[in-house]
Amino acid sequence: MNYAVESLKLHRQWKGKFEIHTTVPVSSSEDLSLAYTPGVAGPCLEIQKDIEKSYELTRRHNLCAVITDGTAVLGLGDIGPEAGMPVMEGKCILFKAFGGVDAFPLCVKSKDVDEFVNTVALISGSFGGINLEDISAPRCFEIERKLKERCDIPVFHDDQHGTAVITLAGIQNALKLVKKKKEDVQIVISGAGAAAVSIAKLLLQAGFLHMILCDRKGAIYKGREGLNWIKEEMAEVTNLKKRQGSLPEMLVGADIFIGVSGPNTVTQEMVRQMQQDAILFACANPTPEIFPNDAKAGGARIVATGRSDYPNQINNVLAFPGIFRGAFDAGAKEINEAMKLAAAQALADLISEEELDEDYIIPKAFDPRVGPAVAAAVKKAAVTSGAARRKQETL
Amino acid sequence: MNYAVESLKLHRQWKGKFEIHTTVPVSSSEDLSLAYTPGVAGPCLEIQKDIEKSYELTRRHNLCAVITDGTAVLGLGDIGPEAGMPVMEGKCILFKAFGGVDAFPLCVKSKDVDEFVNTVALISGSFGGINLEDISAPRCFEIERKLKERCDIPVFHDDQHGTAVITLAGIQNALKLVKKKKEDVQIVISGAGAAAVSIAKLLLQAGFLHMILCDRKGAIYKGREGLNWIKEEMAEVTNLKKRQGSLPEMLVGADIFIGVSGPNTVTQEMVRQMQQDAILFACANPTPEIFPNDAKAGGARIVATGRSDYPNQINNVLAFPGIFRGAFDAGAKEINEAMKLAAAQALADLISEEELDEDYIIPKAFDPRVGPAVAAAVKKAAVTSGAARRKQETL
Repeated sequence: MNYAVESLKLHRQWKGKFEIHTTVPVSSSEDLSLAYTPGVAGPCLEIQKDIEKSYELTRRHNLCAVITDGTAVLGLGDIGPEAGMPVMEGKCILFKAFGGVDAFPLCVKSKDVDEFVNTVALISGSFGGINLEDISAPRCFEIERKLKERCDIPVFHDDQHGTAVITLAGIQNALKLVKKKKEDVQIVISGAGAAAVSIAKLLLQAGFLHMILCDRKGAIYKGREGLNWIKEEMAEVTNLKKRQGSLPEMLVGADIFIGVSGPNTVTQEMVRQMQQDAILFACANPTPEIFPNDAKAGGARIVATGRSDYPNQINNVLAFPGIFRGAFDAGAKEINEAMKLAAAQALADLISEEELDEDYIIPKAFDPRVGPAVAAAVKKAAVTSGAARRKQETL
Repeated sequence: MNYAVESLKLHRQWKGKFEIHTTVPVSSSEDLSLAYTPGVAGPCLEIQKDIEKSYELTRRHNLCAVITDGTAVLGLGDIGPEAGMPVMEGKCILFKAFGGVDAFPLCVKSKDVDEFVNTVALISGSFGGINLEDISAPRCFEIERKLKERCDIPVFHDDQHGTAVITLAGIQNALKLVKKKKEDVQIVISGAGAAAVSIAKLLLQAGFLHMILCDRKGAIYKGREGLNWIKEEMAEVTNLKKRQGSLPEMLVGADIFIGVSGPNTVTQEMVRQMQQDAILFACANPTPEIFPNDAKAGGARIVATGRSDYPNQINNVLAFPGIFRGAFDAGAKEINEAMKLAAAQALADLISEEELDEDYIIPKAFDPRVGPAVAAAVKKAAVTSGAARRKQETL
């Protein structure tokens, strides 16, 4: 099936993928007096006294904004804010289906970091959380950092952290199979965008020690000319031996390849140069860095991709719905490292030692256990890490 | 019933008055490939080529933002953005129930006119229309004007125009009963806020000639000291005889009183000084400028209020859902004067000459004919006035 053509046809019929439904009675004058004026003055005044009450008296407690500026939509690049909206709507319906989260799509017509940040911060009182989506790197890092400083609700750039959480879960399970330790393995990450940077950071948080990021010019190392600020930052904490060279050169002797870059960047021959029991996460979509069959032919033991038609799909839907569900259930004011690590652990733990094999290192997208398991772990981590905003007697 | 207390109790149970519902299948991997990646690239690219397609391929065509800064919420005043949200949610559910419009509540944390405008303008690509709500005067006029300049979608401040449309409809019908002509009647408007100014402007548009606005200091006339810019503007087009004096003085010999000010500003004695067959629209809520029984005792022939427990309720729900429904159905890029006048005419026309009487000059809020009638009239006016954005073969 040509998905793009078929999807366009369906979108013409659908005319949008969501609706706003009313959940209270509005069929009599009496109903309106309670849901609207004059009665509504009661809840208004209650929130005026204590803004926290907005989480009890409006939909805010379950409401996430899915916001883009349209600069890095899917693999399509900078197609503009309005053109990103079919993706934002799609993301919103996944939030609902997999996490029970009410998510609302928004696009911001500005490529200026501070203007974008200001716009989102000023409307943040309408929401319980903000999911940033499809914003180009390195702007996305600055936007997220500044928004986290200004907002007292969770701000989460899923292209970064969702991908990182699932990758970490998959790598953890893969290491069990190949019986290697996280402290020992050499990881090569292809890409230096949102996902690559976030994966590297989360792996470091999780205790992985040896990793090299490669961009189009090869290994990123401290002192390399022309690095942007985020690559400079990454050069401080990765590739501590300052190895220089191309991606194929870096892959020689590596244990793990994580691709979040572009299609066909890895060959069978390159896989052959890796360590025994090589693990490849080839997540470029729809065409991975290397197809599973080719990687296996090159000697890879475990291959994951972003595709649903191969085993071990790194599908963001495994993480973000449960992460926000858990954050909302905890009344969290942020989504911190502890919560992301807990989400990854919960995902990895869903596969028992007996079930675990090369073609099943990560739960499937439609496994009904995923959302609740991630949510419960994230909620717990929110509370224990002090991220929960409200009193926790009821948790 | 103490509505505020009962409403607070209900809001605690409801925890928000709306939900986001998914309208497309999301129960298989195939479903996701069409509603989300990779298929969604199809509609995205289509919108990139032509932004107008966002009205066909996303929910935008039926989606209205209901936006406040929390500065003039109900009669409560400046209670803050979050505290205004129960009202915004209430407004949204009325949009849906009475107009089939998907409306989404937003609050903006800024009292700076330009910052508010910029914020709303930058997210306007996510919506098909913007309904401004509960923003203090005279800021609301400037905000609306600037937003209309910057946005290519309808921007409508309901506190102004909705009230004006219904008032015009009611006045038109009242004049039929008392057999006076719009060119002849003397109108006194108490208030100089959003509603008062908009009512005056729309009545002028509709051909009424003689009106005086009164604020707390009495009649507004050209040259009066200390007028703010909007009052100065109104002094150019109303009270052309530059009459000076208090509200009671202005009421002497007046045919029509329109109150959008505060409770108990008009007495029986003042009504007695008005012309025979006096018409009073005492819209302050919940306590009107004068209660109907007192006005009638003073000799008034027709009295309207904002209350549902008296005849002739000026209830905004009569206008805004149908106005947006019609604007959306026409693919309108604005809501212009012609559309507002058409809405008022449609409302007035719903009451036949036989049905028309002192206690029935305006349709009831739950009259099922109202929404469709207003929508049809507004849609037609949008097309004939050139406000429709898209090609109109299909209308």
